[in-house]
Amino acid sequence: MNDTMKTILEHKSIRKFQNKEIDESILNQILEAASRGSTTGNMQVYSIIVTRNEEHKKKIWEFHFKQNMVLEAPLLLTFCADFNRFNKWCEQRDAVPGYDNFLSFTTAAIDALLAAQNAAIAAESYGLGICYLGTTTYNADKIAEYLKCPKGVVPITTVVIGYPAETPGLTDRLPLEGIIHDEFYRDYASDDIDRIYKEKEALPLTAALLEENQLATLAQIFTQKRYTKKDNVFFSKSFLNFIRKQGFMNHDE
Amino acid sequence: MNDTMKTILEHKSIRKFQNKEIDESILNQILEAASRGSTTGNMQVYSIIVTRNEEHKKKIWEFHFKQNMVLEAPLLLTFCADFNRFNKWCEQRDAVPGYDNFLSFTTAAIDALLAAQNAAIAAESYGLGICYLGTTTYNADKIAEYLKCPKGVVPITTVVIGYPAETPGLTDRLPLEGIIHDEFYRDYASDDIDRIYKEKEALPLTAALLEENQLATLAQIFTQKRYTKKDNVFFSKSFLNFIRKQGFMNHDE
Repeated sequence: MNDTMKTILEHKSIRKFQNKEIDESILNQILEAASRGSTTGNMQVYSIIVTRNEEHKKKIWEFHFKQNMVLEAPLLLTFCADFNRFNKWCEQRDAVPGYDNFLSFTTAAIDALLAAQNAAIAAESYGLGICYLGTTTYNADKIAEYLKCPKGVVPITTVVIGYPAETPGLTDRLPLEGIIHDEFYRDYASDDIDRIYKEKEALPLTAALLEENQLATLAQIFTQKRYTKKDNVFFSKSFLNFIRKQGFMNHDE
Repeated sequence: MNDTMKTILEHKSIRKFQNKEIDESILNQILEAASRGSTTGNMQVYSIIVTRNEEHKKKIWEFHFKQNMVLEAPLLLTFCADFNRFNKWCEQRDAVPGYDNFLSFTTAAIDALLAAQNAAIAAESYGLGICYLGTTTYNADKIAEYLKCPKGVVPITTVVIGYPAETPGLTDRLPLEGIIHDEFYRDYASDDIDRIYKEKEALPLTAALLEENQLATLAQIFTQKRYTKKDNVFFSKSFLNFIRKQGFMNHDE
């Protein structure tokens, strides 16, 4: 197996970090790697905001529901869908940008996410640990305000990076047959679901979670504790409102 | 520089492919790599549809505006945001899923895109060439219908993969300072834009495009030819409608 495959297959999210800075040269390589990711029409409609300052991290930590790893990690990278720069370029070059719409937002978000995964893998190739913060879309409006993002810019995800202070094992994954479809999507019958989730449900980790939460099934931990409908609906509305405010929904008015 | 960084930094999109199959074992490694990508709460809310059949490829080629590379590549991977499997699991486990909303769609799309970039890098580590198809979001509804995606499933991106039959040079990128912001987003003044785009605008490729399109600026080629407002608005509406149809907008009704 080649080294790139090893880096990818050995990925574990890291949530505890050593108190150790990341060399400027390594940071540059991580950012360079991000910039080599595929991008729609080579427009590069994303931006990356680098946070290392302790005071700024403390503020951003609040927007991410005070998850400790945000404070511990020496480096945060916030990846943003960004048509602001491209729009400004168009306007300075006698071109009328037509990117104030949802498709363009999606395009820019895709650019940002491919860049993020390049950065994550690059960091791991240098022995660093990473973790994605899914909470960026929850508080994209507040994060954007604090980071001074203008119209046309929407934070999509954040990667925390640092030297690991823990060595977790690989996280379980569904068997490949559970996520892969050959030629056509084959919908899941009830016994497919049982088979696909069997291993996950039998993990000691699952038993511990059920005990801790006093719930009957792992799925209930997701629906009642971790990703509730109430939260999802609340943050759906605020995220959509923010996308609109940033100028990406001008077709539905 | 380590091999992983080399793989990432040497990425070039490949659009011409040899008539050569990809070994089953390599395909499996690519899919395994995809499945190791970070995923929100380890929910793995995405699916990957594998296309190798010639007849199916020909159909999918039409949805991607008949780009030749879709026919030439021996392998297409369509990455979908997918809450269908997770919802079914919840329902079979006495849990009420609350994922019929835009935040959940975004979460699933992020999962799908991180998996896609893992697959892309894994493929390149085996000497394969890849290209992303940005057109998946344009015709997500038609692609989903053809691939038999049920409610809860939205195609987000497609990666074509095969052995390269061309050896392009690295694509130009904006200088890093153009996409990176230190601590806070620093908005672009007019001379920043001039400086950041200077190298791109001076490329022989740019001169050739201007000549070919009989336009005055490179930006006009984007706004008037490649990514027009009319197309963007049209496909924004159909993509949003499809996301709604797939059950991810139940909060705005």
